[in-house]
Amino acid sequence: MKIYAVDFSEETPKYAQISKHIKKLIDKGKIRDGEKLPPIRKLSSFLGVNNDTIINSYKKLQSEGYAVQKMGSGTYAKKREESRKLKRDYAETFKKMKGKDLDNYIDFAGETSCNIFFSIDNFKEVINEVIDRDGVNALIYQEALGFEGLRKSISKYFWNNKLAIEDILIVSGAQQGIDIVSKAMINVNDNVIVEKPTYNGALFVFKWRGANIFEIDMEKDGVGLEDFKEILKKNRIKCFYTMSYFQNPTGMTYSREKKEEILSLAEKYDFYIVEDDYLSELIYSPNIKYESFKSLDTNNRVIYIKSFSKIFLPGIRLGYLISPKEIKEQIENSKVNTDISTSSLMQRALDLYIRKGYWKDYINNIKSMYLKRYNYMEKCIKDILKDKVSFNSPGGGFNFYLKINDHIPVTSDRLFYKCKRKKVLISPGVLFYRDRDDGVKYFRLGYSQTHETKIKKGIEIIDKILTFDKDN
Amino acid sequence: MKIYAVDFSEETPKYAQISKHIKKLIDKGKIRDGEKLPPIRKLSSFLGVNNDTIINSYKKLQSEGYAVQKMGSGTYAKKREESRKLKRDYAETFKKMKGKDLDNYIDFAGETSCNIFFSIDNFKEVINEVIDRDGVNALIYQEALGFEGLRKSISKYFWNNKLAIEDILIVSGAQQGIDIVSKAMINVNDNVIVEKPTYNGALFVFKWRGANIFEIDMEKDGVGLEDFKEILKKNRIKCFYTMSYFQNPTGMTYSREKKEEILSLAEKYDFYIVEDDYLSELIYSPNIKYESFKSLDTNNRVIYIKSFSKIFLPGIRLGYLISPKEIKEQIENSKVNTDISTSSLMQRALDLYIRKGYWKDYINNIKSMYLKRYNYMEKCIKDILKDKVSFNSPGGGFNFYLKINDHIPVTSDRLFYKCKRKKVLISPGVLFYRDRDDGVKYFRLGYSQTHETKIKKGIEIIDKILTFDKDN
Repeated sequence: MKIYAVDFSEETPKYAQISKHIKKLIDKGKIRDGEKLPPIRKLSSFLGVNNDTIINSYKKLQSEGYAVQKMGSGTYAKKREESRKLKRDYAETFKKMKGKDLDNYIDFAGETSCNIFFSIDNFKEVINEVIDRDGVNALIYQEALGFEGLRKSISKYFWNNKLAIEDILIVSGAQQGIDIVSKAMINVNDNVIVEKPTYNGALFVFKWRGANIFEIDMEKDGVGLEDFKEILKKNRIKCFYTMSYFQNPTGMTYSREKKEEILSLAEKYDFYIVEDDYLSELIYSPNIKYESFKSLDTNNRVIYIKSFSKIFLPGIRLGYLISPKEIKEQIENSKVNTDISTSSLMQRALDLYIRKGYWKDYINNIKSMYLKRYNYMEKCIKDILKDKVSFNSPGGGFNFYLKINDHIPVTSDRLFYKCKRKKVLISPGVLFYRDRDDGVKYFRLGYSQTHETKIKKGIEIIDKILTFDKDN
Repeated sequence: MKIYAVDFSEETPKYAQISKHIKKLIDKGKIRDGEKLPPIRKLSSFLGVNNDTIINSYKKLQSEGYAVQKMGSGTYAKKREESRKLKRDYAETFKKMKGKDLDNYIDFAGETSCNIFFSIDNFKEVINEVIDRDGVNALIYQEALGFEGLRKSISKYFWNNKLAIEDILIVSGAQQGIDIVSKAMINVNDNVIVEKPTYNGALFVFKWRGANIFEIDMEKDGVGLEDFKEILKKNRIKCFYTMSYFQNPTGMTYSREKKEEILSLAEKYDFYIVEDDYLSELIYSPNIKYESFKSLDTNNRVIYIKSFSKIFLPGIRLGYLISPKEIKEQIENSKVNTDISTSSLMQRALDLYIRKGYWKDYINNIKSMYLKRYNYMEKCIKDILKDKVSFNSPGGGFNFYLKINDHIPVTSDRLFYKCKRKKVLISPGVLFYRDRDDGVKYFRLGYSQTHETKIKKGIEIIDKILTFDKDN
């Protein structure tokens, strides 16, 4: 018991001092992960406080992830997961680096489009035209659904005028789209199905809602349907979150058959498909045709989310969402209660940018550049990493997802840290799974930020680490 | 039982058809509010389906707010609240009206600043300067905390350089600030204290998090401290949400004493104060001094949220948040998982706008205009509505909160609908309380959108309705 002694020298409430003390003991390893904490009465009499004080400090530990309560058995210490450290280190890497610092690195982890073909002059022209045309209104009027002109352009240029503009909601990027949809529809203990692996930012949001998360392994043409049906038979599902093209991180694309089958399951079992169409502009393979779940949906089962920030410019923070009639109102209210509306001026500027054809030109240019990088990187991986990794060619997007072959004794988190020391940034697989162990043999390499000249060099560095892995 | 007969002619799952059928019965009043629904076995044998089907349809009814389950007793119908209808009608009023339509109304409900003194030329100058200076970077770089230049300006111009720029997080307006803080800190069944009445958008967010909400009546100088202490003695509280200046809707401002006492309670009982400083720029009364909770906080107890959209331009969608060190990381992660970051270009433009002194000029102009409207409206209310209403003069902001005196037989929701028919928009008190009944005698009148010439006319119309209320 001795280690539990608190001297109560601080001004804060006693229960807070106790939990702080125990936290330190856990962090330092003096209380081990899974070790039972003293029974409430025992600790209260040892410390000379009353039982409520101990109860409150244990509750505080729980709420901070430092303890778990087991029914009828007591409270147990919990070491904060290792993978948290990696996630934090990974996030910090990008938080701390600004553009210039990143120039010294070979960045295979960047997830946004590069700006080589972006003409700032076109954008300046567009924004000035908007200001001259709309005056102060450009900074004032906020239609709940977003600027009508932009919604019209989206319907016209991206959906052949087949979308009603009342069904489009402008959001501040796809991440916000996921958050808004989740708040509109997912409540505590609702069941959500996700792909395994999946986008970490979406997992985070579903956990925020207190959802039960079911994962289904990704196959070459989408998630496994047998597992899907098993889950549906036993559980009432609220929604299925999917990235239909160049799934992040696996790079896989759904076959038409799988999309149709999942759509009919959605109808049969009454759930929604949340389709995060994040990179379908970048199709390189002639075998891949663009048919979103949304475009195949005849039963109002799909909530479609599209980001402009991913393929276009990250700082623009724009995207849109198409919701089925049944939950349109909830989703609109969710947007209002999330941030009222999205920046009015940026919406107007993007609208004009699209209507002037600048968008199309930009996408065409960027696509041909990425295709070159894609081919080059694929060749480098095959030539240099040879039998050290396995992968499927995605046929589009801007990532490769590689499996470290079994005979190579390197985990992906270790690879991340070692690469970083050699000024190469990769995304370790452990980021994309709920259970770290599932991701230890995978890593993702992206080429959106990295020119051919650097691609080869970076892959050579990875090869060296995979070849001579020692603790240095 | 007959009314429960479903013909199962649709293609959708049976449980969905059953719940749809029951919903209709509730909406039409054939099943009354609070009426017990048939026991599961009885209904399943009556409809010839299995028990699970009924269980699922009752669950669906619950999730849509059409039923409540009582432990050990069964499931009961619930009529969707009347106040929802009002809330929806109120929201629709503004959703549907664009600028021009609103011109035909006398708008006492608008909650954002007006744009008379805003110079679009200054803004155009600023945005072009940013584009010329930063080029495409203005649309690309996203620092997790927000544009550093803007954070520096916030510290320099609004906090006398006393804030560390690492403690400032740029958000897309105050609503987002509340959402982000809540997701970082509030979990299901956590206890939150709010003012009664309070801002509806905040209530909505806390409910999203599954929080238990405690309300404390507003007094002239802030919430009642006796009630506050009672709640603290019996419950572990996560946070207290407050609008310290010109509280919305009451218009009340906290006294220094109350602020200090609440700060010391926060330290003693270990909770955070979420301070939504939404209009402190508009102090008219010489008796009111600007001292935010944040500025008086010596123990890192205050999470401070400031909107630029409220006082400045609604379409700009910018604000900031200052968090105590202890929860800074959680709040930053919450921002990232909410929408990655806020529009980079708008942040840069606002920064320059502030540094060039345009902000200060704008606020000074707008403040002197609002002061005039404030005085004029106060006079109109006193002269025209005389003994029909009671109120406290707020001494700042842009709202009056009026109580309909007891001898006037009009409820505030009725007043809203009647005013709307006469082209006057007001905010009925029922919007601001969790229990509709608490708000039936109150309404809010704002003058931010309404010139003196219209103020008098609008109040005369309200007077007529309060005088001769009949059902027409």
